[in-house]
Amino acid sequence: MTGKIGSRTWAIAEGYIPASSTGPEPEMLSHETACLLNASPEDAEVEITIFFSDRAPVGPYRLTVAARRTKHLCFNDLQDPAPIPRGTDYACVIESSVPIVVQHTRLDSRQAANALLSTVAYAAS
Amino acid sequence: MTGKIGSRTWAIAEGYIPASSTGPEPEMLSHETACLLNASPEDAEVEITIFFSDRAPVGPYRLTVAARRTKHLCFNDLQDPAPIPRGTDYACVIESSVPIVVQHTRLDSRQAANALLSTVAYAAS
Amino acid sequence: MTGKIGSRTWAIAEGYIPASSTGPEPEMLSHETACLLNASPEDAEVEITIFFSDRAPVGPYRLTVAARRTKHLCFNDLQDPAPIPRGTDYACVIESSVPIVVQHTRLDSRQAANALLSTVAYAAS
Amino acid sequence: MTGKIGSRTWAIAEGYIPASSTGPEPEMLSHETACLLNASPEDAEVEITIFFSDRAPVGPYRLTVAARRTKHLCFNDLQDPAPIPRGTDYACVIESSVPIVVQHTRLDSRQAANALLSTVAYAAS
Repeated sequence: MTGKIGSRTWAIAEGYIPASSTGPEPEMLSHETACLLNASPEDAEVEITIFFSDRAPVGPYRLTVAARRTKHLCFNDLQDPAPIPRGTDYACVIESSVPIVVQHTRLDSRQAANALLSTVAYAAS
Repeated sequence: MTGKIGSRTWAIAEGYIPASSTGPEPEMLSHETACLLNASPEDAEVEITIFFSDRAPVGPYRLTVAARRTKHLCFNDLQDPAPIPRGTDYACVIESSVPIVVQHTRLDSRQAANALLSTVAYAAS
Repeated sequence: MTGKIGSRTWAIAEGYIPASSTGPEPEMLSHETACLLNASPEDAEVEITIFFSDRAPVGPYRLTVAARRTKHLCFNDLQDPAPIPRGTDYACVIESSVPIVVQHTRLDSRQAANALLSTVAYAAS
Repeated sequence: MTGKIGSRTWAIAEGYIPASSTGPEPEMLSHETACLLNASPEDAEVEITIFFSDRAPVGPYRLTVAARRTKHLCFNDLQDPAPIPRGTDYACVIESSVPIVVQHTRLDSRQAANALLSTVAYAAS
């Protein structure tokens, strides 16, 4: 296995953190994640840019995914340079120094039972 | 970052706006969206054609996604040239003047708790 | 728009029709669909082969998707050459005479509120 | 039909088996599956490597998907070389001796009604 699996540029067009939640936190907090898999033998230096409908992009948000590790990044936790507003449409572009794989997931617990969505993100070639 | 991320032609085969809803509107209204990310430095002129099972396609629906912005387009809101009927199978082709990324999402609140689905749309090469 | 959008061969690895349902039928019947979009100016002659975990494949199931139409095919309704058993793991390969786009969706209403999943199917190149 | 459909290397970045369940088991047990379709005329020898956020990868897990069969592999059932911990972020790489198609699905029944997510996995080229 070479471990060089994935792409260096990814996009998630559907970003939205629901503004309310039902059920015990932190497990049932409404949230969105970008799950990053770095199967390669080198650390991945990752930069995320957040896009909005009505204002300039914000970023980059920077993080490292260690070699041969996965990081399930919760957008709710991003703080620097600014938190992601709740109940607001956004999107993002994710750029990495080495190929990674990205999957996007939302848990929406606004109603009594949670709902889930997930998709592999869009890999730019 | 060049910002030229995505494809100029996209398709969503699974279109269906549930005809009823449970919970407070507008948040919990059953709806479908095409989330469009234009990461490029140019505005995207977008045309959408709606396909049905038993009649000729309708369109184009026209909109602009500004440079370096996202637009989460709600199919429920389309009016010109005609609204999308509820409880009806449809599909669509989305064409853009510059590369964009498209993700398809449905919130179905016909029953007491909402359900969600999402997938990156099909990018024609 | 050329209308030649998609692939002539598609696969869905995750097939499963839940064996029970909650809520009013037919709308809330647990079901699976393959949503087929034929944006081309020619009719699509489609053949579906169903794969199982423990027996030989069954098929082909044959249908036509008219030019510039969509068909949201419900696996529950397939009868010839044999119905799809409920509560059973399956998968399928979909082959078309012209390029089409395929999206896979399940509505699972075994519990009090329905759950949904959807993904663009795998397009063989 | 050649039956050589898919890729020999796949990745799932979003792995998480919820630690609790609501409703009758085994049907409503919270679980994750990798649905593998081997449409080819040869058996597929498959190796799975599991990645974590904070420790070295574990594997390979080995299984065979017979020629022209599907296998809906439940991550909850993996035992050798070690079970997958519940309530823990993971990811995986799936490698096969012949082309296969992989779709990832989770059933989350932590709350009163189950939620579902699914996506075709990432196919490395």
